[in-house]
Amino acid sequence: MVFHIERPDSAIRPALQAKIDNLTKPKGSLGRLEELALQIGLIQQTLSPELRHPQNIVFAADHGIVEEGVSIAPKEVTWQQVCHFTHPQGTGGVNFLCRQHGFKLKVVDAGVDFDLPRDRGIIDLKVGRGTRNFLHCPAMTEAEMEQCLAGGARVVRQCAEEGSNVLSFGEMGIGNTSPSSIWMSLFTGIPLAECVGAGSGLDSAGIRHKLDVLQRSVENYSGDGSPRDLIRWFGGYEMVMAIGAMLQAAELKMVILVDGFIMTNCILAASRLEPAVLDYAVFGHCGDESGHKRVLDALGAKPILNLGLRLGEGTGAICAYPIVESAVRMINEMDDFRSAEITKYF
Amino acid sequence: MVFHIERPDSAIRPALQAKIDNLTKPKGSLGRLEELALQIGLIQQTLSPELRHPQNIVFAADHGIVEEGVSIAPKEVTWQQVCHFTHPQGTGGVNFLCRQHGFKLKVVDAGVDFDLPRDRGIIDLKVGRGTRNFLHCPAMTEAEMEQCLAGGARVVRQCAEEGSNVLSFGEMGIGNTSPSSIWMSLFTGIPLAECVGAGSGLDSAGIRHKLDVLQRSVENYSGDGSPRDLIRWFGGYEMVMAIGAMLQAAELKMVILVDGFIMTNCILAASRLEPAVLDYAVFGHCGDESGHKRVLDALGAKPILNLGLRLGEGTGAICAYPIVESAVRMINEMDDFRSAEITKYF
Repeated sequence: MVFHIERPDSAIRPALQAKIDNLTKPKGSLGRLEELALQIGLIQQTLSPELRHPQNIVFAADHGIVEEGVSIAPKEVTWQQVCHFTHPQGTGGVNFLCRQHGFKLKVVDAGVDFDLPRDRGIIDLKVGRGTRNFLHCPAMTEAEMEQCLAGGARVVRQCAEEGSNVLSFGEMGIGNTSPSSIWMSLFTGIPLAECVGAGSGLDSAGIRHKLDVLQRSVENYSGDGSPRDLIRWFGGYEMVMAIGAMLQAAELKMVILVDGFIMTNCILAASRLEPAVLDYAVFGHCGDESGHKRVLDALGAKPILNLGLRLGEGTGAICAYPIVESAVRMINEMDDFRSAEITKYF
Repeated sequence: MVFHIERPDSAIRPALQAKIDNLTKPKGSLGRLEELALQIGLIQQTLSPELRHPQNIVFAADHGIVEEGVSIAPKEVTWQQVCHFTHPQGTGGVNFLCRQHGFKLKVVDAGVDFDLPRDRGIIDLKVGRGTRNFLHCPAMTEAEMEQCLAGGARVVRQCAEEGSNVLSFGEMGIGNTSPSSIWMSLFTGIPLAECVGAGSGLDSAGIRHKLDVLQRSVENYSGDGSPRDLIRWFGGYEMVMAIGAMLQAAELKMVILVDGFIMTNCILAASRLEPAVLDYAVFGHCGDESGHKRVLDALGAKPILNLGLRLGEGTGAICAYPIVESAVRMINEMDDFRSAEITKYF
């Protein structure tokens, strides 16, 4: 699967900046809103950007590495949570946020180790019943990796056909902070010990064990060291599918809302395949998971929020959406000093 | 004007915390949303809090101290901006945020040095045409201070009658970072130099001059040193009106959304009259104005956002509102582990 991602043409930047600077406020006084308006104007190549039909796509899968006791949560929580937030009552963590901010929720079975109910609208792209245990062998085959990239891309093209130009991506997969930490370390050079955290609630002994398992996994790695190979060897089905989705979204010039620790490492990995994907990324939230701030810094990313969330599912990205929307409203709905007849004193 | 502010009864706290802890998420994994839900549940004394009819009240006035050249912006910008964001077109900075988040905007003339148009719905509580210059004498009289406190309280009671239980407060007043910095220093003990910043855009020479003027103003102070007297001596009409509004809102058990540097210093001053007002305060935003983080720390306040805004008018508080709303939705719309049939592993 090959993606053709163009960097936004910067020719429009001076006009965008001038429009933002002339709005009736002291220059720069709307801070991040001004930066976001500039970025989205660049992505959409217009002085009047708009956000249409936001959707949150949750990719779900299980992980072979869970056999090694790297997570406090039992594997069954993956399918239970998928059933939970696709229940018609919509009483999960991601559901109330989707309702609040007008997001459609798409849930994709990328590889959950369970026969999920067929009446919940779950998109079935199951690649397998969980990855293999990367302590001993690659988590997935080349063919499975391609299937993941293509599947993620297909879901995003569907969203584009439905009229979306802004997507957030989330995940559900017990054990997926483990592959995230390994990617983070291998793609940034930050020592693994600084990339490993508590996940859904390990104590310090649990974190030490997790680090030991991950260190041995990296020692056992015998691939070619290319980004593609590292993604395949350690990745989760849901994570590689998210990478395909992000790359496709960037190719289609959509705004990508990046959620927490796992999704940040997915876009980090994606950027090692196609660096221009980062031009389309808006980082929603810096969570408490140890290492999240470090990987954001490594990406030069400034998250919008820091609310101590660590739920995943896209919740951090969706919480940040109203701020992104404010930025777009700002550039479209404020007038400039000339038409407002206010003394411009700066 | 005397306010009777009760601290929220903490008897309900264990039941609130239990409800939050049993929602279908790892304990604490919704971070600030959980803390906000607890606070609002305490304020409203219910396990099912709700936010009704949010309003943003902007108090506007001029300041005698502007004669000393403490602001880069000319005084006329106060009335121009008031005219601007009360214009039917609604193209000011605060207007698009009010529209986005369903806030009604009330603008109060607390003491603008201009005959404002009568056809804009501006609430006329004009105490004078700007305060006196506190370098030489008290900014306002005792009677004017009472008039401000009563006026702010009256606007809030009106909001309560209209069905509101959550209010944000903002300000428009060229020069008002100066009284804010003085209050901050006198009420926290932080040296004045660390409380003075660029306001709407002073350069370093301008900041030095502003600090010099404010230092001499404090040296010239000859009152009794009580909170009431310090508020009166250095305050702006719009700021003291905001204090009256905040105290009345707390008495009525409303949620108070606190905006930027100036409003933070207003609630600081209010808390020196009635400490319990802080139980009702949700701090929306930490801006870039030098000293804002310091005064928030002094109050033990954790702002929701840090977006580099420095526009005032309530913009930082309104930007934070969707997060507050998320907290309330969380506690009302998520179900618990028992009803969701998810393995509780922690």
